[in-house]
Amino acid sequence: GMLGESMDEHESDQTILLEANIDNQNGEQLGYTMNRLLSEGALDVFFTPIYMKKNRPATMLSVLSKPESKQKMIHIILAETTTLGIRTFECPRSTMNREFLTVRTKFGPVQVKHAFLDDIEKYSPEFDDCARLAISHKVPLAKVCEAAQKSILDRDWEQKSESVITE
Amino acid sequence: GMLGESMDEHESDQTILLEANIDNQNGEQLGYTMNRLLSEGALDVFFTPIYMKKNRPATMLSVLSKPESKQKMIHIILAETTTLGIRTFECPRSTMNREFLTVRTKFGPVQVKHAFLDDIEKYSPEFDDCARLAISHKVPLAKVCEAAQKSILDRDWEQKSESVITE
Amino acid sequence: GMLGESMDEHESDQTILLEANIDNQNGEQLGYTMNRLLSEGALDVFFTPIYMKKNRPATMLSVLSKPESKQKMIHIILAETTTLGIRTFECPRSTMNREFLTVRTKFGPVQVKHAFLDDIEKYSPEFDDCARLAISHKVPLAKVCEAAQKSILDRDWEQKSESVITE
Amino acid sequence: GMLGESMDEHESDQTILLEANIDNQNGEQLGYTMNRLLSEGALDVFFTPIYMKKNRPATMLSVLSKPESKQKMIHIILAETTTLGIRTFECPRSTMNREFLTVRTKFGPVQVKHAFLDDIEKYSPEFDDCARLAISHKVPLAKVCEAAQKSILDRDWEQKSESVITE
Amino acid sequence: GMLGESMDEHESDQTILLEANIDNQNGEQLGYTMNRLLSEGALDVFFTPIYMKKNRPATMLSVLSKPESKQKMIHIILAETTTLGIRTFECPRSTMNREFLTVRTKFGPVQVKHAFLDDIEKYSPEFDDCARLAISHKVPLAKVCEAAQKSILDRDWEQKSESVITE
Amino acid sequence: GMLGESMDEHESDQTILLEANIDNQNGEQLGYTMNRLLSEGALDVFFTPIYMKKNRPATMLSVLSKPESKQKMIHIILAETTTLGIRTFECPRSTMNREFLTVRTKFGPVQVKHAFLDDIEKYSPEFDDCARLAISHKVPLAKVCEAAQKSILDRDWEQKSESVITE
Ligand code: NI
Ligand code: NI
Ligand code: NI
Ligand code: NI
Ligand code: NI
Ligand code: NI
Ligand code: NI
Ligand code: NI
Ligand code: NI
Ligand code: NI
Ligand code: NI
Ligand code: NI
Repeated sequence: GMLGESMDEHESDQTILLEANIDNQNGEQLGYTMNRLLSEGALDVFFTPIYMKKNRPATMLSVLSKPESKQKMIHIILAETTTLGIRTFECPRSTMNREFLTVRTKFGPVQVKHAFLDDIEKYSPEFDDCARLAISHKVPLAKVCEAAQKSILDRDWEQKSESVITE
Repeated sequence: GMLGESMDEHESDQTILLEANIDNQNGEQLGYTMNRLLSEGALDVFFTPIYMKKNRPATMLSVLSKPESKQKMIHIILAETTTLGIRTFECPRSTMNREFLTVRTKFGPVQVKHAFLDDIEKYSPEFDDCARLAISHKVPLAKVCEAAQKSILDRDWEQKSESVITE
Repeated sequence: GMLGESMDEHESDQTILLEANIDNQNGEQLGYTMNRLLSEGALDVFFTPIYMKKNRPATMLSVLSKPESKQKMIHIILAETTTLGIRTFECPRSTMNREFLTVRTKFGPVQVKHAFLDDIEKYSPEFDDCARLAISHKVPLAKVCEAAQKSILDRDWEQKSESVITE
Repeated sequence: GMLGESMDEHESDQTILLEANIDNQNGEQLGYTMNRLLSEGALDVFFTPIYMKKNRPATMLSVLSKPESKQKMIHIILAETTTLGIRTFECPRSTMNREFLTVRTKFGPVQVKHAFLDDIEKYSPEFDDCARLAISHKVPLAKVCEAAQKSILDRDWEQKSESVITE
Repeated sequence: GMLGESMDEHESDQTILLEANIDNQNGEQLGYTMNRLLSEGALDVFFTPIYMKKNRPATMLSVLSKPESKQKMIHIILAETTTLGIRTFECPRSTMNREFLTVRTKFGPVQVKHAFLDDIEKYSPEFDDCARLAISHKVPLAKVCEAAQKSILDRDWEQKSESVITE
Repeated sequence: GMLGESMDEHESDQTILLEANIDNQNGEQLGYTMNRLLSEGALDVFFTPIYMKKNRPATMLSVLSKPESKQKMIHIILAETTTLGIRTFECPRSTMNREFLTVRTKFGPVQVKHAFLDDIEKYSPEFDDCARLAISHKVPLAKVCEAAQKSILDRDWEQKSESVITE
């Protein structure tokens, strides 16, 4: 049946979610902090708009990290932001198996992330490859994405890498 | 005293909160996913606007489910969205006791959710009943809501159902 | 028919909408700015969460003012925020006729805003009256709102003020 | 050249944008209002989360309408919401030429919106067709979207309708 | 090295995060609820804009509390809001050591929060002091903040309090 | 008096605000579009999270441009996004006079934007200078910002450029 099974146990790894509410630092500095955290190994960094007391528009900084990077991430957040307290959640993450493929397009090769689990298969062209080709060929991004999509649907693989993504 | 006690242990059941950050799927498809999850038994589904790396406006999908539906919900999210990782939180939920009542209004009967716990009592007319009556009577929704509210305040019950909501 | 007419011209006055995108000032200061603008005569002040270049979460400050206050509002925004440019829109506003009434409740009198136009009538209890009574009577706010609502539905007016709101 | 011309005058029609800030009505009722406005001929209805005075999370209701529907839309907003004032903007809209096509997929026919202007061409499968086929075939929506996308990229037209969309 | 250590265990205390999704209560009432919770001892209260089923713009209420206040906070949320279920998370919080200092400025004394941990030191002028001085001296807030900032950078302490903040 | 005058006419130039609601394109592509528009001469580009019909989380793309770039911006938006209609507003903008200065800090020189109008003067260190110095000196960004702020408060100018910003 469709999406039917409900008993299986999906793959899972352990991550840490860190959260800090920030109402006394500006957006310029928060954009910088996002880049710093990503370059130091954060799995993901994102901002959520929130509303705090005294009519303050504010931002919740969320950082997803591997357990072994937790203290490093906390240290960077404390050093780079004005926050004095960081909430910490242990957070199992259900993931799919992943591998890289490459498809041919008329604009050049594009790497493709292939994810698979149970009966689910998903292919997504690497965004940075598409963006680079659109810029260099002076065409709208959609043209490159469509070309990659067509090659994926035609299973027009150039090569199949062995590497497994661990992000 | 007012809202005074602080020692009691409120009712609680166990739920699962699932979260996925989605930056490579469009809003049309996410609206569809919300409906799919609700029709397959999710307790609640909601979207939060977030901001991810590389200037990407994105959406956090949150799904609240019963523990026994957790793997089914994860499977649907993996099948219907582009996400490759779903964060999982165990999440006790403090709830109120609930029962259904029905009130008479000049537009017709409206079901009312009666919630009670300690010294707290809340009555809320079922939205879908009010909406249906507003449409069929060609009056603004507020007129039906007000009529239901007045009947509730007058305790003008039509019948008291035995059913207990387990949502 | 229901909400049927489409030809009438509704009441209208002229207002000015001012907008500024702010990515280099913190939320504490913006909350202060909101209060300053309101105390200097702004009709309305509100914040919208936006996302700007370089991964910056930011806030759009919007101020609605009467035409004669426009330059004063611009001056305050320039003085109290970091923005260097304020967008200005002329903005006709369709409004309803308004008057104040007062209803009796068991908690005390509550002022009610009565709005009317064509066949539309709306009554809303003044929030600040309800909040004050809830605090002084140590009851949940909803109890006071419900009492005011019931008195409105019963048309239990205490007095009908002559004043017309010009906000 | 790429996206090169900057001198052409793009197509344009006239629309009206209506805005109302709502802090004293709940989300259930606002969802209803969106549906009411769309069923009465609004071109578009959307909500923006805003933050108002006194720590109030609120919603800005925006309605895009044809000039001839302006008064009707204002009347519905006044009747169905608590707002007492609606901001009005005249709003020229640059649009693309549009026509409907139909593509064959293994799940059935899917209507496609073809937009064109200057050297720009865009094709998008009708979402509701894809959603209906996904439900009836019990497959993830992405499978139907991909099939439609592939047929579009192959220019596998079933028929070309003459109708022009005026939305 | 810069932000280098990753092995240390930062300070931590235990907090409780409570969450409730609210789609059937208005913003006026939610602003009141925020104030009520803060005055009853919540460590932090904030709102996140979310989007729920049936096109409902809604608000997630989040309350951070000490473990010993958990049941009191739950009781207030149940009494003051329409929610029937409150999600509960145990949430260790990494914090910095804190003390109060006072700096001299030409507008008057301003209290300063000094936070320190490892090699990180942060000083932030108390917002309410700055706001009060700006109002009483009739100058833009930024002038007072700058004066306080300059005194902090000059380490121009007036007194060093012994008190440690436990917020 | 404080912020007192209300009669003066502030400086003003003319800009164009373009808006498009996007519910069928993903965040990766929108981030790319922001960069494209900025590199082609947009004055400002920002995203606002909105909620559209059928439970769709969506993004409003806003582009501020000079009048002479309007058609070029419209063309890029039509080419790079899925939108079929772009709302256009004429938008006078109140601005401040601006010049560049440079301050000395122990980390190196930092350019400073000096804005002035009436009795208002604002100085802001160029963010990109601060970020570059923080990275190269391996210190938290706040340390560089503070150093620049101190030099500004001490009026420790290195040079005063003649250039006037026209952004
Ligand atoms: Ni450390
Ligand atoms: Ni990605
Ligand atoms: Ni599975
Ligand atoms: Ni409900
Ligand atoms: Ni001035
Ligand atoms: Ni009000
Ligand atoms: Ni009318
Ligand atoms: Ni559509
Ligand atoms: Ni209790
Ligand atoms: Ni603070
Ligand atoms: Ni063109
Ligand atoms: Ni800037």
